[in-house]
Amino acid sequence: MENFEYSIPTRILFGKGTEEQAGKLIREYGFRKVLLHYGGGSVVRSGLLDRVRESLRAEGIEFAELGGVQANPVLGMVRRGIQMCLEEKAELILAVGGGSVIDSAKAIGDGAGNPDTDVWKYFLKEAVPQKAVPVAVILTLAASGSEMSDSAVITNEENGLKRGFGSPFHRPLFALCNPELTFSVSRFQTGCGTVDIMMHTLERYFGWTKDSSVTDRLAEGLLKAVIEAGRKADQNPEDYEARAALMWAGSLSHNGLTGLGRAYMMQVHQLEHELSGMYPRIAHGAGLSALFCSWARFVCPAAPERFAQYGQRVWDVEMNVENPMETALAGIQATEEYFRSLNMPISLEELEVEPERFEEMAEKCTNFGARTLPGIRELGKEEMLEIYRMAYPRR
Amino acid sequence: MENFEYSIPTRILFGKGTEEQAGKLIREYGFRKVLLHYGGGSVVRSGLLDRVRESLRAEGIEFAELGGVQANPVLGMVRRGIQMCLEEKAELILAVGGGSVIDSAKAIGDGAGNPDTDVWKYFLKEAVPQKAVPVAVILTLAASGSEMSDSAVITNEENGLKRGFGSPFHRPLFALCNPELTFSVSRFQTGCGTVDIMMHTLERYFGWTKDSSVTDRLAEGLLKAVIEAGRKADQNPEDYEARAALMWAGSLSHNGLTGLGRAYMMQVHQLEHELSGMYPRIAHGAGLSALFCSWARFVCPAAPERFAQYGQRVWDVEMNVENPMETALAGIQATEEYFRSLNMPISLEELEVEPERFEEMAEKCTNFGARTLPGIRELGKEEMLEIYRMAYPRR
Repeated sequence: MENFEYSIPTRILFGKGTEEQAGKLIREYGFRKVLLHYGGGSVVRSGLLDRVRESLRAEGIEFAELGGVQANPVLGMVRRGIQMCLEEKAELILAVGGGSVIDSAKAIGDGAGNPDTDVWKYFLKEAVPQKAVPVAVILTLAASGSEMSDSAVITNEENGLKRGFGSPFHRPLFALCNPELTFSVSRFQTGCGTVDIMMHTLERYFGWTKDSSVTDRLAEGLLKAVIEAGRKADQNPEDYEARAALMWAGSLSHNGLTGLGRAYMMQVHQLEHELSGMYPRIAHGAGLSALFCSWARFVCPAAPERFAQYGQRVWDVEMNVENPMETALAGIQATEEYFRSLNMPISLEELEVEPERFEEMAEKCTNFGARTLPGIRELGKEEMLEIYRMAYPRR
Repeated sequence: MENFEYSIPTRILFGKGTEEQAGKLIREYGFRKVLLHYGGGSVVRSGLLDRVRESLRAEGIEFAELGGVQANPVLGMVRRGIQMCLEEKAELILAVGGGSVIDSAKAIGDGAGNPDTDVWKYFLKEAVPQKAVPVAVILTLAASGSEMSDSAVITNEENGLKRGFGSPFHRPLFALCNPELTFSVSRFQTGCGTVDIMMHTLERYFGWTKDSSVTDRLAEGLLKAVIEAGRKADQNPEDYEARAALMWAGSLSHNGLTGLGRAYMMQVHQLEHELSGMYPRIAHGAGLSALFCSWARFVCPAAPERFAQYGQRVWDVEMNVENPMETALAGIQATEEYFRSLNMPISLEELEVEPERFEEMAEKCTNFGARTLPGIRELGKEEMLEIYRMAYPRR
């Protein structure tokens, strides 16, 4: 086990009706001016946004609004948000939505807290924010875990670069998590969320530290719960327990818990960022689903025992002690079949990605030759290209 | 799943050498005067205490000292600590030790933060602290989880009443957790710690909420990791990975995580508190070990499926779908054999408890007729007596 620091101060209010407490909580924290940040569509149609406005007004909290965040949130919107935050002197950004809205809010918080620094510099890792305007969340999608994580990912629409960074200031102050708000999430988006949640745990699980028994067991247990809940929510979108399991597992999967004491680099996420950075129509979870099993088959020979443990403990594959590679591959196969059962893509061809652009994607993923990705197997440009190619053909 | 609130702000620095950072961290937080609180024996002999003093001096932090905390910490010591805290104007209490020292420090913090209220009133639940002097921890024992929990348990030595209560102010500000500091823990204390850690998760697991798939899976995974690590640490006290697993599992098992979304009442802990309250020579973990399986056999007929799930998932007992009671009892039996393998007592006779005092213990456990304990099966005085009697004979 590696040394680690655990510090997750985000306060979670989880369960039915928790979103109703937004105004009251914000007042208790002493904030008077808020930027209300959201996407569009469902939060408007469902009446949630009206209820949030009402909750703020009831407590005498002033607010400005910035809606219209899209999936794969963009820098242009972040810049508008920063400007509004400064003009309105907002003390808190209240994100109502899923990961895209929350990440956009975090980036706005970074920028508004440090008006003299161009916010994109943080994403390029050319600067580190020393403070930020805090973010609170009303969660409407179980997927990104951004409601409890320290990370934020933004796409620069001018050059298609999708970049993320972690900061303690990115942990939301509080998050109100009512699983009922996800009853209306489409089958496709539910599948994307399930894959994303699993991937946050899997990417940590397939790091390169050997001993981490507590973290391993927590990760395996979480995966088993998500697999079961993902299936149930796919079949019955209003299954409260399944929606609740996905929502809470989503928060736990990316807050750090499932990687404590482990060294890891989220390689599949890095490969996927180039995909949805270049093709913003590709949902993050769908991109991960199309890449993961090819990535796993590529790196697996470097750590067959680890993948065999995964197959055995998570998918109940019988362990082949003589030939752990067999158990390992069976576990990867079971994952692929599961993703397919949720109607998720398992190849890049299904996503209509153009193979002639793989070169450019790999080039961007190395930050134009500036980095390789450490891992069970280190990935340079050639290895990245190989994984993109392996992931292409429809199965 | 029940609605829940998650709020665990304690910052953990986990791993080798973390205790060296005490002085530096305390200075970063801005504290200048500290009450250094500890037990005796091993922290002195090992030189740890000297290293802590040095770490404080190196950062120019003033400190007063109060050592001598015993297992099952007592109110008298707490009162002395409160007086010292007030006299010395201590801004932080630094607990160096295990659960007894940490709990004593928390109670001192409650009292010193509210000098106009008698601290025992909080334990009798006649008052609620509105503030407290904060506590930080250098952990030397994997057991209580007090380094991250909101609870504190103190014995009033004047009447033998052992009482605990939870408060958000009881969450330590930070805890430095170096598993190497537990290498010297005796085989007996390691067994007590392993049982205590398991019990913190088991008591939540055997609450009465039916659906909580994520929490269930986390609990089951944690238990599996603890069972394995407890065995390894018993056989090789200097197995770093085993000691690290026990230490981190100890913190997670009582910080709330393994009970989120579940309704529960820690019945075995309540039964045990009367035991070690009346016989302070009995270690808490040993008392739990002697009581748990009898308690489980007593309440099991009210929820055989739950106990069967435990047997299957934690102990790999084959599920008997026709007769889950069989699987349930096999799981309890496996637990008992495991406790025995760690040289832990599995009967009250081994602990030389006098059966003629069961009546008094049960009476105290009902707070003299003022309460019953809700659970899978509600426990009144008669049921408590029955469990004490079942737990008596040596097996």
